[in-house]
Amino acid sequence: MITLYTWTTPNGRKPAIMLEELGWDYEVKGVNIGRDEQFAPDFLKVSPNNKIPAIVDHDAEGGPLSIFESGAILTYLAEKSGRFLAPSGHARFKALEWLHWQIGGLGPMLGQLGYFANRAPEKVPLAIDRFRDECARLFGVMNKRLEESEYLGGDYSIADIACYPWMIVALKDAMGETLARSSGIHAWLDRVGARPAVQKGMKVLQ
Amino acid sequence: MITLYTWTTPNGRKPAIMLEELGWDYEVKGVNIGRDEQFAPDFLKVSPNNKIPAIVDHDAEGGPLSIFESGAILTYLAEKSGRFLAPSGHARFKALEWLHWQIGGLGPMLGQLGYFANRAPEKVPLAIDRFRDECARLFGVMNKRLEESEYLGGDYSIADIACYPWMIVALKDAMGETLARSSGIHAWLDRVGARPAVQKGMKVLQ
Ligand SMILES: N[C@@H](CCC(=O)N[C@@H](CS)C(=O)NCC(=O)O)C(=O)O
Ligand SMILES: N[C@@H](CCC(=O)N[C@@H](CS)C(=O)NCC(=O)O)C(=O)O
Repeated sequence: MITLYTWTTPNGRKPAIMLEELGWDYEVKGVNIGRDEQFAPDFLKVSPNNKIPAIVDHDAEGGPLSIFESGAILTYLAEKSGRFLAPSGHARFKALEWLHWQIGGLGPMLGQLGYFANRAPEKVPLAIDRFRDECARLFGVMNKRLEESEYLGGDYSIADIACYPWMIVALKDAMGETLARSSGIHAWLDRVGARPAVQKGMKVLQ
Repeated sequence: MITLYTWTTPNGRKPAIMLEELGWDYEVKGVNIGRDEQFAPDFLKVSPNNKIPAIVDHDAEGGPLSIFESGAILTYLAEKSGRFLAPSGHARFKALEWLHWQIGGLGPMLGQLGYFANRAPEKVPLAIDRFRDECARLFGVMNKRLEESEYLGGDYSIADIACYPWMIVALKDAMGETLARSSGIHAWLDRVGARPAVQKGMKVLQ
């Protein structure tokens, strides 16, 4: 049995999608980050970086195993199941490069754009423009890839699972216009969004 | 033979350290990002996100393989060599969670702090404070871990290799004072910095 600590945010939805894809039994524990529940001592034991998502696999090889960081969680679930990430060779590292691109680029940059454009106590054009431009650049890179390949890593993989919830935020969050001309991304959004597990995972805790 | 495309930056130094640790033969190609060489069409074929580092392994299983994103490169080299990342179990995922923590947290946040504190055309206190606070928080998390464990993942791993060049930047880059009280981090910096491969990799292209 796996416990998923999560919230209704893009990073929180990724492992929910993966667990739905696998059809595994899991229990969801909500960590309300709007109420600072990520700083509760019991949660910090699982996720010392005070962020969701995190998991505990109570039946892991060698005893109960806690993992934080969505990229590490997706990799764990992929390796445990043997699904959505090739075990070696080109296909494996094409998926892992796009997974890391999401973790290190798409996620943090959309996150900062969301803060400076929507939540910051003052509007700072320098910061808003910086993150808007970087997101537009990232979308260009992603669109080019998705015009050549149905999925980011070639086949559907944890890289697509990591990017999908963020691209849904991007569509809504003032970047929709920039994305209108990105036909590769739109076709991919349709393809990924048609998966029942994705639809179910996106609704975690709702 | 492996070709490493890199530059004299923290992300660029990570795979150089790893290749030195492995003692493998590799050739270095400098991509001067100050002169926009990351946008050259030949480099974009290897690294479509126009960032260093990237590698091409000319002797990969299944033919020449290019990989971008430092986290994916480190994982590839660890799996190919069987070193600095356990093949399964707890040790593997403790290392991978801290690797992803560097890729998604420490790196982007120190990168944005460097921009807003040092290079931006105007000083924006809201942005400088935001990224300084987030870096201080990340250092606290890291220090706590390194007071309990000699290395981030338990044993020395690609997680330490990913964090080390960034922490050297942090020490120099106005965060040195914040770090002064972080005895776990300082002991780790000494431990990692004493490794000949780390010293050599840090000097790539110099
Ligand atoms: N790189 C991390 C990012 C996780 C993250 O940013 N989580 C946010 C919600 S989407 C969070 O828990 N924020 C609460 C906090 O930072 O205190 C991952 O991919 O898991
Ligand atoms: N997440 C990436 C980040 C790579 C990165 O930011 N590279 C910088 C230099 S440290 C770069 O190439 N910048 C040039 C550009 O963005 O145009 C990784 O870990 O490889």
